[in-house]
Amino acid sequence: MTAPARPSSPVAGTVPAGMQYLYGSGEAAALSSQAYRALAQHVRASADYRQAGIEVASVVLAPGSSLASPHFVECGAKPLAIVLDIDETVLLNLGYEADEAARGLSYDDARWRRWEATGAGKVDPVPGAVEAINAARKAGVAVVYISNRTAANAPATARALEGAGLGKAIPGETLLLKEEGAGSGKDMRRAQVAETHCVVALVGDQLGDFSDLFSAAGMTPAARRAAADGIQIEPLWGAGWFMLPNPVYGSGLKGGIGEVFPANRRWTDPGAAAAADAPAGTLKE
Amino acid sequence: MTAPARPSSPVAGTVPAGMQYLYGSGEAAALSSQAYRALAQHVRASADYRQAGIEVASVVLAPGSSLASPHFVECGAKPLAIVLDIDETVLLNLGYEADEAARGLSYDDARWRRWEATGAGKVDPVPGAVEAINAARKAGVAVVYISNRTAANAPATARALEGAGLGKAIPGETLLLKEEGAGSGKDMRRAQVAETHCVVALVGDQLGDFSDLFSAAGMTPAARRAAADGIQIEPLWGAGWFMLPNPVYGSGLKGGIGEVFPANRRWTDPGAAAAADAPAGTLKE
Repeated sequence: MTAPARPSSPVAGTVPAGMQYLYGSGEAAALSSQAYRALAQHVRASADYRQAGIEVASVVLAPGSSLASPHFVECGAKPLAIVLDIDETVLLNLGYEADEAARGLSYDDARWRRWEATGAGKVDPVPGAVEAINAARKAGVAVVYISNRTAANAPATARALEGAGLGKAIPGETLLLKEEGAGSGKDMRRAQVAETHCVVALVGDQLGDFSDLFSAAGMTPAARRAAADGIQIEPLWGAGWFMLPNPVYGSGLKGGIGEVFPANRRWTDPGAAAAADAPAGTLKE
Repeated sequence: MTAPARPSSPVAGTVPAGMQYLYGSGEAAALSSQAYRALAQHVRASADYRQAGIEVASVVLAPGSSLASPHFVECGAKPLAIVLDIDETVLLNLGYEADEAARGLSYDDARWRRWEATGAGKVDPVPGAVEAINAARKAGVAVVYISNRTAANAPATARALEGAGLGKAIPGETLLLKEEGAGSGKDMRRAQVAETHCVVALVGDQLGDFSDLFSAAGMTPAARRAAADGIQIEPLWGAGWFMLPNPVYGSGLKGGIGEVFPANRRWTDPGAAAAADAPAGTLKE
């Protein structure tokens, strides 16, 4: 988690709407369960195909891909794996977020590192994650975590995962964290897993959990949305790429009115126009 | 849409985080496409089962159900149907929301009615909705909308749906809106559809789009979340009940710190404790 975009002006003691939704609502729990149910079905189908001798495709973009022209590394006979992000993908960081809400704080990198180091007991698994990950392991599919939590806190992060029921993660093998001085891109680590495994699913809450191409410099929110919804990428959602909800922080929380709302979808309230045009005192006459 | 919960203190000219996420992000577009891909697969499987003479189950709760003990109406040979909510389920209300953001307004019922009446050209379909709904119709599955838009504006709402590529909806038949003076519950309208059709999928952005039981008086956010994630209800998400994201308004945006964050998941930042305990000037010594 690297200096993520956050709603501005937090007020101590109040819960921002995104936190109410993600951590408190049945709606968000339903979204998460639904995503993990689709993942479990996809992993089961992939394992069945492999068993039946049918070629299974990787979902990691191959070098030279663009978002308009993606292509995928070949799998051959490599063992199957799924790759998951950690924060707000398999773990809900309840302790950290409650502390921010209670004290009205914005994201702080040093505080986040203290959280990584000491928060293992104050997380919950994302609804549906434990069942889907157990099902993958039972089907003989390896489970690998790629996260930008710092590698220096790897043992504590492994404890947080195990404590939440997400099983054992081995630093450097099935737990690939951000090394000191390394960038926040994840393509290199995805390529590293794809060297030895056939990655049949990527799971995350940010577009960067699927490809660094979404993080290209100067890409506007509208361009990122158009790429995610484009004819080449859209078919991956729910069919190899699995998105978890996160309206609390990250790359989805950007943009002013002109960037979020297309110019041809702006509406003028006829009631407001009448009010503005009417001389004082004649309103609604 | 009836006086929905909204984030407090909107500021004119800025976009609340929930709107940035839902209307502007690739992440939310991915979530929506993923939900509609799961719906399309479910509808196709249901149609295939029916064709093969295999019994198909309804996903509308039967009278006498509770969330701890749900049961379902029988389908017999009734024709298949799916039931969808409209706002932020199949339509993104871009014009209305941009106006609220630009002017810093909170939800207003009269303004919303003007939007229903005049906003037909200022909406977009939710990503994935058009494709899934077309696929359902192609498979011979009826498409019915149940929404709390007012019945008085039915022709304008039908125009908005058709203009967004969501096909024809016939007021009173496949477009069941809120009649003047009626409550906002939807169970009666769901039961009405289930009388003549085998409802194989419910699609919405609020728990009330699935059962009025989630709207019982006095139900806390935690109780609603526990019910949605409970052992009897959780298996429905992505397998008959399909949730779309909406961190902008509605029943998911409720709760203070004590209601959103479980007491046993609160974390005390050791850095903050050190700062508070240390006499002035000795910090970090």
